[in-house]
Amino acid sequence: MSKKQENTFQTIISHAKEYGFVFPSSEIYDGLSAVYDYGPYGSELKKNIRDYWWKSMTQMHDNIVGLDAAIFMHPTTWKASGHVDSFSDPMIDNKDSNKRYRVDHLIEGFADKLTEKGEKERADKLVEEMNQLLAKEDFASLKDLIVTNNIKCEVSGTTNWTDIRQFNLMFKTEIGSVADATNTLYLRPETAQGIFVNFLNVQKSARMKIPFGIAQTGKAFRNEIVARQFIFRMREFEQMEMQFFVRPGTELEWFEKWKTERLAWHQSLGIPAEKEHFLPHIKLAHYANAAVDIEYEFSFGFKELEGIHSRTDFDLKRHQEFSGKKMMYFDPEINQSYIPYVIETSIGLDRMFLAILSNAYEEQTINKEDGSTDSRVVLHISPKISPIKLAIFPLTKKDGLPEIAKGILDDCKRSFRCYYEEKDAIGKRYRRQDAIGTPFCITIDHQTKEDNMVTIRHRDSMTQERIAIADIKKIILAEII
Amino acid sequence: MSKKQENTFQTIISHAKEYGFVFPSSEIYDGLSAVYDYGPYGSELKKNIRDYWWKSMTQMHDNIVGLDAAIFMHPTTWKASGHVDSFSDPMIDNKDSNKRYRVDHLIEGFADKLTEKGEKERADKLVEEMNQLLAKEDFASLKDLIVTNNIKCEVSGTTNWTDIRQFNLMFKTEIGSVADATNTLYLRPETAQGIFVNFLNVQKSARMKIPFGIAQTGKAFRNEIVARQFIFRMREFEQMEMQFFVRPGTELEWFEKWKTERLAWHQSLGIPAEKEHFLPHIKLAHYANAAVDIEYEFSFGFKELEGIHSRTDFDLKRHQEFSGKKMMYFDPEINQSYIPYVIETSIGLDRMFLAILSNAYEEQTINKEDGSTDSRVVLHISPKISPIKLAIFPLTKKDGLPEIAKGILDDCKRSFRCYYEEKDAIGKRYRRQDAIGTPFCITIDHQTKEDNMVTIRHRDSMTQERIAIADIKKIILAEII
Repeated sequence: MSKKQENTFQTIISHAKEYGFVFPSSEIYDGLSAVYDYGPYGSELKKNIRDYWWKSMTQMHDNIVGLDAAIFMHPTTWKASGHVDSFSDPMIDNKDSNKRYRVDHLIEGFADKLTEKGEKERADKLVEEMNQLLAKEDFASLKDLIVTNNIKCEVSGTTNWTDIRQFNLMFKTEIGSVADATNTLYLRPETAQGIFVNFLNVQKSARMKIPFGIAQTGKAFRNEIVARQFIFRMREFEQMEMQFFVRPGTELEWFEKWKTERLAWHQSLGIPAEKEHFLPHIKLAHYANAAVDIEYEFSFGFKELEGIHSRTDFDLKRHQEFSGKKMMYFDPEINQSYIPYVIETSIGLDRMFLAILSNAYEEQTINKEDGSTDSRVVLHISPKISPIKLAIFPLTKKDGLPEIAKGILDDCKRSFRCYYEEKDAIGKRYRRQDAIGTPFCITIDHQTKEDNMVTIRHRDSMTQERIAIADIKKIILAEII
Repeated sequence: MSKKQENTFQTIISHAKEYGFVFPSSEIYDGLSAVYDYGPYGSELKKNIRDYWWKSMTQMHDNIVGLDAAIFMHPTTWKASGHVDSFSDPMIDNKDSNKRYRVDHLIEGFADKLTEKGEKERADKLVEEMNQLLAKEDFASLKDLIVTNNIKCEVSGTTNWTDIRQFNLMFKTEIGSVADATNTLYLRPETAQGIFVNFLNVQKSARMKIPFGIAQTGKAFRNEIVARQFIFRMREFEQMEMQFFVRPGTELEWFEKWKTERLAWHQSLGIPAEKEHFLPHIKLAHYANAAVDIEYEFSFGFKELEGIHSRTDFDLKRHQEFSGKKMMYFDPEINQSYIPYVIETSIGLDRMFLAILSNAYEEQTINKEDGSTDSRVVLHISPKISPIKLAIFPLTKKDGLPEIAKGILDDCKRSFRCYYEEKDAIGKRYRRQDAIGTPFCITIDHQTKEDNMVTIRHRDSMTQERIAIADIKKIILAEII
């Protein structure tokens, strides 16, 4: 990314830390690479995005139900899914520094430097060659490519490389209940398999008829060797996945429907149409017969937020094979049993959070009436998911204004998250709420005691108006549900 | 537990599976011991309990903010907290069967059998002796106690025991980013430490003043050797923890306040006062100067749901020591810096779920007007947390009734979770909603087309009344917020 893009991205990361959105994990112990913690406002924003997704999926669709499967699953699950055999990245180690690289990252990093030096043509050719060799899993030629291009380790500065090997990305742990044997468990690398193994339990207990969906949110883990770009690629992350089970032959029709619906969901949270696009997969995964990513334009380029995949009957068929249990559905409408086909929508919650934050962040110059200028940092987060909905300010700490303000707080806090503050000048209080994306602030002043009215100030337009205390809750609720 | 209690408990477990609340994890692969998945209605109920706790803690208290720290933490965290050295259980293995036992479970199981045989006095004496030896960590004498009482392995039937050893309960995994060294990480055994290590980041970014709290929900993991009692003791479970930071010397006052508030919270979800009690800890943990459990009376006895602990400044002090970073707070009111004291409220979400389910479950005999009797299974779950709030039934599938019903569904589903069903007799549809705890059902009949009224049926009383379509949403919302 360019210097300017890099600066923008670093500014957002700093803002996220300073204002309690995202902290490096275990920061007092100098952090844990590629793991992050969500702070007071971050945890609320993350929860609000998750809840909004959950509501969109389950509450708004009477043919989609929820599931909350455990992170630990029977290890055979991951043999059936193919993760034990093939969920791996080609890696190479530098023998002098012992630093390990993902082969694609090493070569792409070198190509980026070529581009910066004006050798874009050579860079593009290199990346193309790399992609062809990766597709063929021709690791010997890939190593040659690294050596002949004189690609060096950034730590040792040498080209003293090991051979390229596959490195499985699943975290392992041991579960112990007998003395002489321990069982290896994996931390799930995706939530989807929890849905597949529970397919029949869900279908029967909730009496679902095809077409129907199962939705789930939860943590997944990948032992990424080089994790980059803040919360974009983490070792521990959260997915929001929905598997939609359909009659074989109808899957591509449903694939199109879900593409449309998911893009509309993103836009309903204020992501502008021009900041996202569909990227169809050119090389399909072995289980898919159609696949597309919804990409968002971060400061470091268009990157995947969500995948929509037509996964055929691959997963259910494999679980039937490995478990010996039938994974068939009897369809009363056509009087036939079959293994359903699956359309999956899979979105990274942390990535969506980063997209929302990136899209919301603005450093604004304000032209004041007296001709001077002022500035503010404002997060234009949709009121539906903003951490705080309403900030309540008594103009002063005396004259009974805090009592009125606290009465409003007590009335509103059952319905949505409020923030109360009585210190500092009103302008300063506004700025702090702008910086965490609070859409509405109200001020209680001396006039309030006469007319039971307060001043409401709108975050984005900064316009102010007088409204009745009795109307506050109604006005806010209309914007957030 | 007695045969009758055992039957009651098994009935609830079966009901939970049949009606989509809880499934054994990876059941198609014959399950994974002590791990469970939450089904369509279970995932909603669990989410509703979690959301209700979160709202009670953060939204209703303007001096408590949220946090969402990662499961992965820097490994030094667990040295500082004491978990690496002392989060372990004494274990013993039978050499013939290789079966491993927790020493206390082995002896208690034997004592239970003595009691059943009428030797209660001997059983009590044995358990008392065991507790004294466990407290002294006198493992040699504990082994003697097992051998002299002729306590046998249930698998091999022999007394051929190994020595007793400590077994750490933390799950380990390896995180890899360099070739020659891997770093051991632990899956967090509690969420509390995520709050302590982030104490200053939270306090500063959200400008909190003592007293204030940090609330968090999330997964924790313990490698329990013998995990028992359904979802009561699982290897993967979810905690809802709040750490309240106070001025030293005021902690016992806050301890009492939080005891009262937490018990009231339980009761606000419909747990009757006589089903819960406080159990003060007699032997305090090394970090505590006061501690109490809230216990619920399950069919297998009073068991811990929630702990309220006065943890002193132990954790923050240890993190200051191990990280070299000051964990001090400057208190402007008394013009002093200090390490705050902490009151912790820590509740098991899965245990609360089980308590709610156990308390809600009833097999009811209904005396009908014609003198005959009928029966139903009903879950008396508080409407605030029930999985479905409203079921909507057109009396028949024709005459435009489904269209009216779907209009109501579309209007209500934005506000709360609804269920639509048009098949089977109304009585049968009521029974299915009773079994999943839906508090309200409405039926649209031919009269509805004339008067725009529907019949609402209340789950617990089974009473029915006519209400206007226009009032439905208001009536339901009044019960669930």
